[in-house]
Amino acid sequence: MYYIGVDVGGTSVKLGLFDKEDNLIARGSFKTKTIEYLVDDLVKNIKKIFKENNKDIKDLIGIGMGFPGHVDGETGVVVYSNNLVAHDYPVVQKIQEQINVPVRISNDANVAALGEFTYGKGKGVNNIVFVTLGTGVGGGIIIDGKMLEGKNGAGAEIGHMVISTNGPLCSCGRRGCFETYASASALIRNARIAMTNNPTSKLCKAVKSPEELDGKVFFDVLLKGDKVANIVFESYIEDLAEGLTNLANIFRPDAIIIGGGISYRGDVLMEPLQIRLEKMIYGGQWNARVELMVSELKNDAGIYGAYAMAKKYLK
Amino acid sequence: MYYIGVDVGGTSVKLGLFDKEDNLIARGSFKTKTIEYLVDDLVKNIKKIFKENNKDIKDLIGIGMGFPGHVDGETGVVVYSNNLVAHDYPVVQKIQEQINVPVRISNDANVAALGEFTYGKGKGVNNIVFVTLGTGVGGGIIIDGKMLEGKNGAGAEIGHMVISTNGPLCSCGRRGCFETYASASALIRNARIAMTNNPTSKLCKAVKSPEELDGKVFFDVLLKGDKVANIVFESYIEDLAEGLTNLANIFRPDAIIIGGGISYRGDVLMEPLQIRLEKMIYGGQWNARVELMVSELKNDAGIYGAYAMAKKYLK
Repeated sequence: MYYIGVDVGGTSVKLGLFDKEDNLIARGSFKTKTIEYLVDDLVKNIKKIFKENNKDIKDLIGIGMGFPGHVDGETGVVVYSNNLVAHDYPVVQKIQEQINVPVRISNDANVAALGEFTYGKGKGVNNIVFVTLGTGVGGGIIIDGKMLEGKNGAGAEIGHMVISTNGPLCSCGRRGCFETYASASALIRNARIAMTNNPTSKLCKAVKSPEELDGKVFFDVLLKGDKVANIVFESYIEDLAEGLTNLANIFRPDAIIIGGGISYRGDVLMEPLQIRLEKMIYGGQWNARVELMVSELKNDAGIYGAYAMAKKYLK
Repeated sequence: MYYIGVDVGGTSVKLGLFDKEDNLIARGSFKTKTIEYLVDDLVKNIKKIFKENNKDIKDLIGIGMGFPGHVDGETGVVVYSNNLVAHDYPVVQKIQEQINVPVRISNDANVAALGEFTYGKGKGVNNIVFVTLGTGVGGGIIIDGKMLEGKNGAGAEIGHMVISTNGPLCSCGRRGCFETYASASALIRNARIAMTNNPTSKLCKAVKSPEELDGKVFFDVLLKGDKVANIVFESYIEDLAEGLTNLANIFRPDAIIIGGGISYRGDVLMEPLQIRLEKMIYGGQWNARVELMVSELKNDAGIYGAYAMAKKYLK
């Protein structure tokens, strides 16, 4: 008996075939299109993965799926997803018109958090906050082993916590959201501004123009030692620590787990964050530590979490 | 068979004698002293309330208690309470040395939230965020009927969520915490500053000096119509709405319930808050509404919550 775990990303859809003993037997992936195509492509790829691995699709117990956007797990509806051009789309029903198995959906960051909690760094703890630093700042919160999904699946939008009233304009319409300071995009944006103001910096020498700067080049220059890169990074760490301390005070989880490309940089990021968190956390001297950790499952957190969700909810 | 619900406040300790059918049979109260005296006074008052109501203390099933500060429900220890001059005090053990019944403790705001959830405005919903506006900003969060207590009971410190980096200094050591903008104390502090800068305002005419201004006078002048009071209040509402919207985005609860003296002012506060919340909440047009409500149990939320906690945990 098998489960399928699906991680719908902005550019590609990844899926994993799992047995009931948590073994990832096979992987698949296809390009993300709008939601209507996605259902057809998914069903095609599920049938393909079963065939290629000589498994009978009758042994499929259920499908778990993480979607970018607002997803209602109770009704099986993608309420809103910018990436998938979806609005109030009954995706579970559409899938079940083609494959008659139970399907459970949730927001991608919630699902990744459940994956990391169940099979990654969250093993052995009760509560985690999972924070992904990418184009935006995504969040998944696990309390007593359960995803905090909120009403209509719209909870855990930790990127849209204002940490500085009147700060930079956010895509959500407010100013000063955590995401406008702590996303990978924010780091690169601020580095490009600093390059324009400091045309002799090592950052400028590393690329032809500020527009060509990416995360890799930024960290290469930072680690080699550059004053401008250092100032930008210090400011980034301050703002990231501000938001993480807020989350530590609100949830006081056992651990805050950081994911997304930036987190793979490890100590250069994590050490200054842990120092600031311990200094700023409420009642620091009286209370147990909130551990900051780097995601273990990395890009696989999504498919593992989707499997964990399917296994939990679908029989 | 009976329960005792106890609400330990900064100035007085309130207790309620409840039967198993949620009836509040009798009330008691005594002055708050340091934690050692509190245990003796509590036991004395519990015995007294049983005697006065012709009940046998052998029929006491358990005691639930809410404490100001950091309280570890698992270990029964008051980790830290400024008000009670307590640090790592095993209060449950101390009580049980005198009355041999089960005791469950938690933070006072968590307990009040559970009370409001179970017997007040939270009836019929799954998730609430309870926010008390007083000297500070307290918070209690109920998810699927359960208090979010966090590691060592240190969670739900929503007052210590920074909403404006580099804002006013907070007692916790950070700058710009929600509490420094949205507490009742912050409103009065800002009104006093405005009075000093506007000596001809109606606020100034209402009291002999800015130090004499209190919440009652402020709202009296505001409701009669005063430009200066209005500017102060508008700014207060903006900041309060900022923090509440953060909480709405993080938890997407069914309701945010506001308690504390200011909340009793009703519409003058709640209407502009609801308008701002709906405008600012993430994905506003696609998602279900988060209702803002005024606490129903008011000052009794604590004893009802302590009873609810006792009933839930103690058999």
